[in-house]
Amino acid sequence: MTELAGLRPAHFLWSVTDRVATIRLNRPERKNPLTFESYAELRDTFRALAHATDVDVVVLASNGGNFCSGGDVHDIIGPLVGMDMKDRLAFTRMTGDLVKAMLHCGKPVIAAVDGICVGAGAILAMAADLRLATPSAKCAFLFTRVGLAGCDMGACAMLPRIIGQGRAAELLYTGRVMTAAEGERWGFWNALHASDALEEEAMRLARSLADGPVFAHGITKTQLLQEWDMGLDEAIEAEAQAQAICMATRDFERAYRAFVGKKKPEFQGD
Amino acid sequence: MTELAGLRPAHFLWSVTDRVATIRLNRPERKNPLTFESYAELRDTFRALAHATDVDVVVLASNGGNFCSGGDVHDIIGPLVGMDMKDRLAFTRMTGDLVKAMLHCGKPVIAAVDGICVGAGAILAMAADLRLATPSAKCAFLFTRVGLAGCDMGACAMLPRIIGQGRAAELLYTGRVMTAAEGERWGFWNALHASDALEEEAMRLARSLADGPVFAHGITKTQLLQEWDMGLDEAIEAEAQAQAICMATRDFERAYRAFVGKKKPEFQGD
Amino acid sequence: MTELAGLRPAHFLWSVTDRVATIRLNRPERKNPLTFESYAELRDTFRALAHATDVDVVVLASNGGNFCSGGDVHDIIGPLVGMDMKDRLAFTRMTGDLVKAMLHCGKPVIAAVDGICVGAGAILAMAADLRLATPSAKCAFLFTRVGLAGCDMGACAMLPRIIGQGRAAELLYTGRVMTAAEGERWGFWNALHASDALEEEAMRLARSLADGPVFAHGITKTQLLQEWDMGLDEAIEAEAQAQAICMATRDFERAYRAFVGKKKPEFQGD
Repeated sequence: MTELAGLRPAHFLWSVTDRVATIRLNRPERKNPLTFESYAELRDTFRALAHATDVDVVVLASNGGNFCSGGDVHDIIGPLVGMDMKDRLAFTRMTGDLVKAMLHCGKPVIAAVDGICVGAGAILAMAADLRLATPSAKCAFLFTRVGLAGCDMGACAMLPRIIGQGRAAELLYTGRVMTAAEGERWGFWNALHASDALEEEAMRLARSLADGPVFAHGITKTQLLQEWDMGLDEAIEAEAQAQAICMATRDFERAYRAFVGKKKPEFQGD
Repeated sequence: MTELAGLRPAHFLWSVTDRVATIRLNRPERKNPLTFESYAELRDTFRALAHATDVDVVVLASNGGNFCSGGDVHDIIGPLVGMDMKDRLAFTRMTGDLVKAMLHCGKPVIAAVDGICVGAGAILAMAADLRLATPSAKCAFLFTRVGLAGCDMGACAMLPRIIGQGRAAELLYTGRVMTAAEGERWGFWNALHASDALEEEAMRLARSLADGPVFAHGITKTQLLQEWDMGLDEAIEAEAQAQAICMATRDFERAYRAFVGKKKPEFQGD
Repeated sequence: MTELAGLRPAHFLWSVTDRVATIRLNRPERKNPLTFESYAELRDTFRALAHATDVDVVVLASNGGNFCSGGDVHDIIGPLVGMDMKDRLAFTRMTGDLVKAMLHCGKPVIAAVDGICVGAGAILAMAADLRLATPSAKCAFLFTRVGLAGCDMGACAMLPRIIGQGRAAELLYTGRVMTAAEGERWGFWNALHASDALEEEAMRLARSLADGPVFAHGITKTQLLQEWDMGLDEAIEAEAQAQAICMATRDFERAYRAFVGKKKPEFQGD
């Protein structure tokens, strides 16, 4: 039992409203870069979310018209250039652990992306379950531009499954910007909304998920991850077991009773 | 050697015309829901199809303007609410076994979808090899609406491979309708046809496959399944073996002789 | 240390200009079919490329308005019809080995496709990392037309990851032409260019990659292959290690120094 509503993180904004948590990086004057400290604190927060009893959905929001400019050149790339291998691997594992923590947090994560969404910022959007953006969202997997490979925090595994192997290869080899229109057409963005509507739409989606059968949502999230590299027959058996668990929840019965009574079900997540 | 032309199933319509079998659920007044009995009989039929000598292609067709409304609320969901875990797992395994039977039947399956195609109905369409629909087809993975998870009968494994991980996540978490236009744009539907042309187009496609090298089609189906979670080097070796088998068929020689003789090949499936 | 600029292959055209190699099949009067000899020589060349010190990017180009018409009916299909299983498997393994050699050559491969691109030609385009085409490019996985299965040289594994499982199944079962517009819409072609601009655009893309951090590009290519059937957690750890390697390169430091000095980085591939 962990309650997270009262969390006061030092390196990003955090709020919980009616079981929906909102996270916002908070250096808008620099388009919200990540730092060693914010990486670590985000990782720890998503790990804590796995046990949170007062949060059902997470929104990763923008701030000041931008989502995230990635690892800061001065705060992160400079120090990395001077590090030894032990510390470099500790860093890349920490960033990977943030993605793993997002994948294992047990709650749907929605990215709401306006403006710049590049480098590790693009990865955070990619690691969310659902992605909304504005027509001016600029997403780029910039790693090649700083002499690195496209394989950062799971990008060579995840991006091909979202937009296809050929399009992912282009973005990862060239580091070019994926326009918002391309991202919507290719299935990276679930929908585009005007800048002044983005937050409202993200909260509406979050609300509808938080009002749904959140225990079952957690199982959906688990299975999307578990079945990533499973044989198809094995995945079908895994789903038979996972769905049988959900059939033992009260939410399943609540939905049935509501249907029979011609009412809207009121899910409670158990 | 099993001949299936004479099959008289109790819970769906069945016909075989010139090696093409057509299956149609048959409660059009309720948009063709599935029941415990039709699930089981469909599973058994697809299992028998693996050995059928008089069927080469299967069409899963609509009836009365709709494809399938999924598991019936009264006939299936009600009883499931009262079941113990043993019986629930027996049910989810039975539904999964239907999908496995479709995947292992050795013949291409074409879904021809008009109108409602939801819940387990959407799964049956998803588990087909090829999918045609009409502009009014409404496809929804409704499980979340009844308090269940999106992981039903293989959906968390298969849907992401068909339409991409992000779009699949949205449909599975929200249960919203995928419009016919979205489904075509996202690669769920191979093509859209007007309602009055759908059956003819589906039969034309089935005919062209049944007139093709059906032994080789069976190998294509096997390899699409076998290579689902194989390494790429291993998949290439698997295909070298599988294609070498096909080169030992008479159909391969027939095609070559026809080409040299400037004729259309007449394939015979051996 | 292998220098390939001086290579004089017998069965295709080869040139190296400023670290970009161009390969062109060279029977334009027959739309550039493959033969036993050109398969083997291409395989050997891509294997040698893994150790080449004077090539960083490969362009597979068209010739005389066409890319490749696949395995020649008279030179390849005819002899295969008469072969025993031992020789057939040796052939299918050789063709698969060409694809494996492309995947393991360590350098980005760009296909520049005009006109006909069918059968094994479509496979070569598919096995490239990036694919440009013209509006008149005609791509077809023809194998079914000669009585064979769609599982040729990795097609049942790779094509679904590029364009989605449903669209891949249609192309592999029917052998129909994928138009250039479809191919662009589905993510098979990264972009379409007019015939008279195709080569220039392909060389421009090749140039930009060859001027980039080519050691890191090699790691991107390796990881796209390595993570093909890895669990997602394992892929994230693999990327943490792979990216830590790239952070130890001088190119990473060069990029940082250039950024700080407000210059364009000059990568050198170490």
